[in-house]
Amino acid sequence: MIDESHDKYKDECGVVGIFNLPEASKVAYLALYALQHRGQESAGIASTDGRQIFSHKSMGLVADIFRPSVLEKLPGDSAVGHVRYATAGESHVKNAQPFVVDYARGSIAIAHNGNLVNAGHLKDELEAYGSIFQSTMDTEVIVHLLASSKENSIVDRLCYALGRVKGAYSLVLQTETRLIAARDPSGFRPLVLGRAKEGWVVASETCAFDLIEAEFIREIAPGEILVIDSKGLTSHKPFEPVPYTPCVFELIYFARPDSDIFGANVYAVRKELGRVLAEEHPVEADIVIPVPDSGVGAAVGYAEASGIPFDMGLVRNHYIGRTFIEPQDSIRHFGVKIKLNPVKSILAGKRVVVVDDSIVRGTTSRKIIKMLRDSGVKEVHMRISSPPTVAPCFYGIDTPTKDELIAFTHTVEEINKYITSDTLGYMSIEGVYRAAKMAGDSFCDACFTKNYPVEVTSTLKARQMALFK
Amino acid sequence: MIDESHDKYKDECGVVGIFNLPEASKVAYLALYALQHRGQESAGIASTDGRQIFSHKSMGLVADIFRPSVLEKLPGDSAVGHVRYATAGESHVKNAQPFVVDYARGSIAIAHNGNLVNAGHLKDELEAYGSIFQSTMDTEVIVHLLASSKENSIVDRLCYALGRVKGAYSLVLQTETRLIAARDPSGFRPLVLGRAKEGWVVASETCAFDLIEAEFIREIAPGEILVIDSKGLTSHKPFEPVPYTPCVFELIYFARPDSDIFGANVYAVRKELGRVLAEEHPVEADIVIPVPDSGVGAAVGYAEASGIPFDMGLVRNHYIGRTFIEPQDSIRHFGVKIKLNPVKSILAGKRVVVVDDSIVRGTTSRKIIKMLRDSGVKEVHMRISSPPTVAPCFYGIDTPTKDELIAFTHTVEEINKYITSDTLGYMSIEGVYRAAKMAGDSFCDACFTKNYPVEVTSTLKARQMALFK
Amino acid sequence: MIDESHDKYKDECGVVGIFNLPEASKVAYLALYALQHRGQESAGIASTDGRQIFSHKSMGLVADIFRPSVLEKLPGDSAVGHVRYATAGESHVKNAQPFVVDYARGSIAIAHNGNLVNAGHLKDELEAYGSIFQSTMDTEVIVHLLASSKENSIVDRLCYALGRVKGAYSLVLQTETRLIAARDPSGFRPLVLGRAKEGWVVASETCAFDLIEAEFIREIAPGEILVIDSKGLTSHKPFEPVPYTPCVFELIYFARPDSDIFGANVYAVRKELGRVLAEEHPVEADIVIPVPDSGVGAAVGYAEASGIPFDMGLVRNHYIGRTFIEPQDSIRHFGVKIKLNPVKSILAGKRVVVVDDSIVRGTTSRKIIKMLRDSGVKEVHMRISSPPTVAPCFYGIDTPTKDELIAFTHTVEEINKYITSDTLGYMSIEGVYRAAKMAGDSFCDACFTKNYPVEVTSTLKARQMALFK
Amino acid sequence: MIDESHDKYKDECGVVGIFNLPEASKVAYLALYALQHRGQESAGIASTDGRQIFSHKSMGLVADIFRPSVLEKLPGDSAVGHVRYATAGESHVKNAQPFVVDYARGSIAIAHNGNLVNAGHLKDELEAYGSIFQSTMDTEVIVHLLASSKENSIVDRLCYALGRVKGAYSLVLQTETRLIAARDPSGFRPLVLGRAKEGWVVASETCAFDLIEAEFIREIAPGEILVIDSKGLTSHKPFEPVPYTPCVFELIYFARPDSDIFGANVYAVRKELGRVLAEEHPVEADIVIPVPDSGVGAAVGYAEASGIPFDMGLVRNHYIGRTFIEPQDSIRHFGVKIKLNPVKSILAGKRVVVVDDSIVRGTTSRKIIKMLRDSGVKEVHMRISSPPTVAPCFYGIDTPTKDELIAFTHTVEEINKYITSDTLGYMSIEGVYRAAKMAGDSFCDACFTKNYPVEVTSTLKARQMALFK
Repeated sequence: MIDESHDKYKDECGVVGIFNLPEASKVAYLALYALQHRGQESAGIASTDGRQIFSHKSMGLVADIFRPSVLEKLPGDSAVGHVRYATAGESHVKNAQPFVVDYARGSIAIAHNGNLVNAGHLKDELEAYGSIFQSTMDTEVIVHLLASSKENSIVDRLCYALGRVKGAYSLVLQTETRLIAARDPSGFRPLVLGRAKEGWVVASETCAFDLIEAEFIREIAPGEILVIDSKGLTSHKPFEPVPYTPCVFELIYFARPDSDIFGANVYAVRKELGRVLAEEHPVEADIVIPVPDSGVGAAVGYAEASGIPFDMGLVRNHYIGRTFIEPQDSIRHFGVKIKLNPVKSILAGKRVVVVDDSIVRGTTSRKIIKMLRDSGVKEVHMRISSPPTVAPCFYGIDTPTKDELIAFTHTVEEINKYITSDTLGYMSIEGVYRAAKMAGDSFCDACFTKNYPVEVTSTLKARQMALFK
Repeated sequence: MIDESHDKYKDECGVVGIFNLPEASKVAYLALYALQHRGQESAGIASTDGRQIFSHKSMGLVADIFRPSVLEKLPGDSAVGHVRYATAGESHVKNAQPFVVDYARGSIAIAHNGNLVNAGHLKDELEAYGSIFQSTMDTEVIVHLLASSKENSIVDRLCYALGRVKGAYSLVLQTETRLIAARDPSGFRPLVLGRAKEGWVVASETCAFDLIEAEFIREIAPGEILVIDSKGLTSHKPFEPVPYTPCVFELIYFARPDSDIFGANVYAVRKELGRVLAEEHPVEADIVIPVPDSGVGAAVGYAEASGIPFDMGLVRNHYIGRTFIEPQDSIRHFGVKIKLNPVKSILAGKRVVVVDDSIVRGTTSRKIIKMLRDSGVKEVHMRISSPPTVAPCFYGIDTPTKDELIAFTHTVEEINKYITSDTLGYMSIEGVYRAAKMAGDSFCDACFTKNYPVEVTSTLKARQMALFK
Repeated sequence: MIDESHDKYKDECGVVGIFNLPEASKVAYLALYALQHRGQESAGIASTDGRQIFSHKSMGLVADIFRPSVLEKLPGDSAVGHVRYATAGESHVKNAQPFVVDYARGSIAIAHNGNLVNAGHLKDELEAYGSIFQSTMDTEVIVHLLASSKENSIVDRLCYALGRVKGAYSLVLQTETRLIAARDPSGFRPLVLGRAKEGWVVASETCAFDLIEAEFIREIAPGEILVIDSKGLTSHKPFEPVPYTPCVFELIYFARPDSDIFGANVYAVRKELGRVLAEEHPVEADIVIPVPDSGVGAAVGYAEASGIPFDMGLVRNHYIGRTFIEPQDSIRHFGVKIKLNPVKSILAGKRVVVVDDSIVRGTTSRKIIKMLRDSGVKEVHMRISSPPTVAPCFYGIDTPTKDELIAFTHTVEEINKYITSDTLGYMSIEGVYRAAKMAGDSFCDACFTKNYPVEVTSTLKARQMALFK
Repeated sequence: MIDESHDKYKDECGVVGIFNLPEASKVAYLALYALQHRGQESAGIASTDGRQIFSHKSMGLVADIFRPSVLEKLPGDSAVGHVRYATAGESHVKNAQPFVVDYARGSIAIAHNGNLVNAGHLKDELEAYGSIFQSTMDTEVIVHLLASSKENSIVDRLCYALGRVKGAYSLVLQTETRLIAARDPSGFRPLVLGRAKEGWVVASETCAFDLIEAEFIREIAPGEILVIDSKGLTSHKPFEPVPYTPCVFELIYFARPDSDIFGANVYAVRKELGRVLAEEHPVEADIVIPVPDSGVGAAVGYAEASGIPFDMGLVRNHYIGRTFIEPQDSIRHFGVKIKLNPVKSILAGKRVVVVDDSIVRGTTSRKIIKMLRDSGVKEVHMRISSPPTVAPCFYGIDTPTKDELIAFTHTVEEINKYITSDTLGYMSIEGVYRAAKMAGDSFCDACFTKNYPVEVTSTLKARQMALFK
């Protein structure tokens, strides 16, 4: 799945926490590097040496921000880190995380993945009592609730704060002496626990563990608050249980294929999605090609199940920079071509199955198909490894508003016509559940079904993604 | 093919020339962007408005260097551009290209891909007569020969200069009113001509044409000096013909798969290499996986020919930054893991064919196989889509010195043992010629056979790649 | 007065406010430029277009920070600005001012000159109720008091907040529609009101008015809160009157000689100080030289009163950068020489009166005298245009701690010996009052007399300048 | 003397050479820092460790360019340095010095103060033989002459090169093993030799020696080539002697007052100029004030000779940045006010003698007098410590073209009227010689008399300061 200017679903955030490992900030940096796909807009690390919290955050990519001279200034054996693509709050360095504050009881650094649905309401209330907000992030609400709690211990304060917020959060929080990991009761976003030498690691995905040679232990449970300190691990489950609804779209598109989340390997799920897709929407064709990189797994699965040869008919340019300047006069708007180029020699004269994970606005698919036809392709059969995307996400995925979702306003047949494919096949929601069953049998699938597991106020729906500003 | 710190064969350079297109520098920028894989160390563009030459070059990636404010300062309808990985000359911005000078007859900007083998000798001679060199690039020799020529026209001066140099050059040269493209008589490096609207484009590879919507016209012929000015195209062939020996390694590894060079599509050649490889080195196995990205084409070909399913068992992280900081204490040297991570779920318990394009030092292959075995792979069958690399390149590819080439010092069986594969199969040179026959039947294959088409002095061999300093 | 690494009394801050002038941020920039001597560590401007507050602040000098591209982003007809040398709070950009926050009732930007003496106590109290501080500046206490006030109007809220703080403040505060200037009841720091076209200007010193061609109207009165909005000026005096005690050291050293503050011209006061000094400590000598630049006025006065010729025997280098690298081996520590160099030809063989405004640690005076003796001076008569500095300032001047003040630990005779002058004459406190009488007859002279007009807690005295951290 | 945007005579360059001192680049940095007044546009240092030459140069001020990390990369015991304000050649970093090149015989770094008058002619000739110029500096001509010389030793080559150039040069040249200082036969620009520990120092002015604690030994003689190497000093005088004509304007304005050049102290000469000026142009007045900083010495001399009290009636702001943004609407063009502000209290009602060193365009004097009158001054008597500036300099001072010199186009009476002084007195040329006699009795005074000691071609005169481009 490719968008013209950037990936259309910008996965909101990735988080990492390190406890009791030498050079914790360097380890956090490596882990963030492995989680870079979850947010390319800003990155930050806060470390502690047990007495003080140090932090650095900046707009940009992990490897550009964390030069040796920067990491030198982040000493200590514990650290939390964050990569971000803005979902709630403006795109500005003051909204970068980890969010670090001093309050009456000491210092805390917090890194959050997910979106709260009642942040606006809580912010109004806190400000009325004199709280001053530094950012436009929903995460800051958690911090002010913590600071204004009457409880004594940090854990009780956090229970109070998380008891008041609603929505999605996978978060890591650090004091001078503790690392705390927490996941909302619905378990929307992934959060995993690992062991490295004498230390502990918490991260959004297991791919972070592979790079730093940590061993995967278990998932942080939905509704769990896990406290890690010098005495070891203590688990708290202060909230009423609710149905576990992890985000199915993490499996379909967001997470890295080499990660294991929600108990399953992501690449394996995608191949299975491809296989079921081949069953649901078979077609006579000469080759199966993916829209790289996110469509590869499903394309391999489709090829295997259908017996049609897999090929890499589209080459992706991986040197994309952040600004991209287009000539005004010389050439036409080149859109998706900046990222993808067809390999004409293997496409010309062929009947091609193109496998992608989803369609958002439809403009990109239309351009890809135009490129393929310009390369001499005879037939284009578009196959999508998910159902039509008909509703926005309020739990942390930055989808466009409803009216921009082509599947909200158009039928499949109309979409097929618009993107100019010969045939278009979307996977059924039942097919998704069948393919994803290795990861469980309940998910948040609101973007396909409009069934929102945690109530979203109509105000919020109206403002949609301008959640918090 | 993956190296630990960077790609082990750093393809030296990419060049582009634009003539008579509005906003030429922006078009050059896009073309360089498509050629970024040919050099990630520095980039530069020189443009002209017919009266003056403007230029900007810097260390770094194309998209980082050429911000809108920079391109604003490069006006005019003609431009030449260059991306570079240092092969001859130190890594320093003064060695970035295009090389722009004022001399008695005006200004010229030159961008060069390839390596000269008699540059040191010519530099000594020129300096003895008072020439002062500004850089340590062999390219500057051409410029001083031009300046000291007794001929009157720029073309005659260039004929004189190129008549004195030996080795590989695909170059573009710009004066205030002309664009000149030249390719050495052996035709080592690719150079192609395209048409865009009223203008002309010259580039290292056709993938640059796709992005800027130029139409491929033809290759610049070996030994051709092509002059483009307001009157049109004039072709000169002033040199004695010699055998045409384009670099076979461009097809095997360097060029982008979506490019057509030497008359063939690169991806198609690679798939064919994979097919022949499957014939030469069949094996019973469960899956075929590539070392991404360069091994993908051959792996697809191998899978097709062998009937063993293709899979993406290794995931590549594409957010690699230029510095990479390793923790000293926390974790072991992570080497290739920063770029590649195995997908355990599809590897565990399998017999795996791993397809790569070549082996240089062997250390990377060894680490990849270790990663695979740690993922539970049962058997590893390494298949290389080229013969053993036994000799360095003197025509522009930055291979390590002979003694670092594992195939120079070890037999295939010893290499197999070192990299810990169960079996190791290198392609035969005959196999390469068979697979590459769509691109012709004569190549420079010196890195596999030690047959150097243009004589290399023993001094040069001794100094090997420290060619010019 | 010269310190080795930087001026020993780093005047804490300068503030400016602009209301109803086109391009207000550019006018503020010019005014700050004229006030640069009051703080060289950081600078900031916040402007408003009536709807929103824009701000930019950074470490560095005014003219380096406010490039055209930065000023472009600060639109509107009103602005507040600040230059700072850290007195309370660490040296870090988060402590730069203006301090801009959003709170329940809107946005405010505040710029503050002076130091509060009960900030620590108030901060503890505010944090206990859940306030989260963003900086370590005492100024932030005022903002949190504002935000937590139960009053409705901004003026009532400010009266509440300023009614709770104690110490020195000359501040400008901006909302989207108002500019407010306030000065503490003791009137420690200067603050003046001017008129420019249809607009109003508030600044620390009148020298800012000269540059922007504003007309001086009057001083902001001690204890006054002056509100400027579209309806004009409204003055509030909500506090009990206390004795007016402006800082005498502003006249002796800090303020610019071309400024008029506390009703008098600074240069005129300094000349008068020099004249009285000549009466109190006459000596036979050949020339009178100042320690430039701050000693010039008093030296001219001393020369006039004594009849001894004035000369510029020390040349000051004005290109001082922020870092200064000393060779380790080649030459001895050069200390003050980086700023001052003697003119040997006019010094050799002479009996010299050296006039400086004060002595802090004594090390600089010692080095200056060494330089003079090395230049062949026959006698050195040091004359100081203020009494011995025996106590630290708690109202906004960054003096070193008591134990570092040479006059706290040594007698005048001992100081004379230490700095190696032939004679040393300090001005009497009576002399200061006599010379400064054009500016009034009551001052804060605590640094000379230990009479602190506003009570300073013993805790604060203990922590001395580490006021707030 | 003050110009609106920058000092109107921008002294072209300062040079320094260090031989055999540990951390030579740091010592050179300090020396350049002391010479910063001779050029604020760019600065550079080249050092050598005996095997290789290292260099760094950049636009900007010495203390901004040479941070510790930069100096770390300039190892070795010898160094040459340069500060520059563009006189010949564009303002661009490629024209910054030292100019460092590799040529047939090794590497050289050269730093040059002064202007050659036959550079254009020599450049044409060298290019015709194939030389390629890298810059538009006249200095590069010397380098190409050196490289193309048939002589063997560096000294003979330099004799050849300097034998061909005409005009002004005080230069330092460094090879891996030698430091060479040379001064043109007329001795236009100063160049002095000093001793520091075991090492030698060459610099434009002695103020550089004071900072680095070097002892002044002697001037480099006119026409001398002084070679310093491990064997000691060797002096060469290969040229026909010509009359010694050092630049009198160095004494009047350019050099630092604490420097000794041409055998005299600069400040002492300026005071003497003031005294003679008082004799030539006496007037009844209340105070004498300088235009700071350059007018201070003459004002002190004038006050002493006339008995009228000296005062600092104009305060100079020393925090001038490189860009200065003016509001378009709010206030009128503020011109010189950005640098100078009057002290009204000591000026109001007075008859004032204003002493400046020279008048170029007259616009600045006019503005200063306007400021003084606005401050209530009763009479303004302008006194200039040099004769009318009627002709441009071709030897390295960047005066405007003839037509912009007010004294070329107007009589003294007309100038008096234009600048609105009550009276205007210029010093006579005889007076200058009388005052400067401690520095000798022959000078280049072409800017006052049009007597050019070294012939200037009419072409050059026509192009005037666009000397070399």
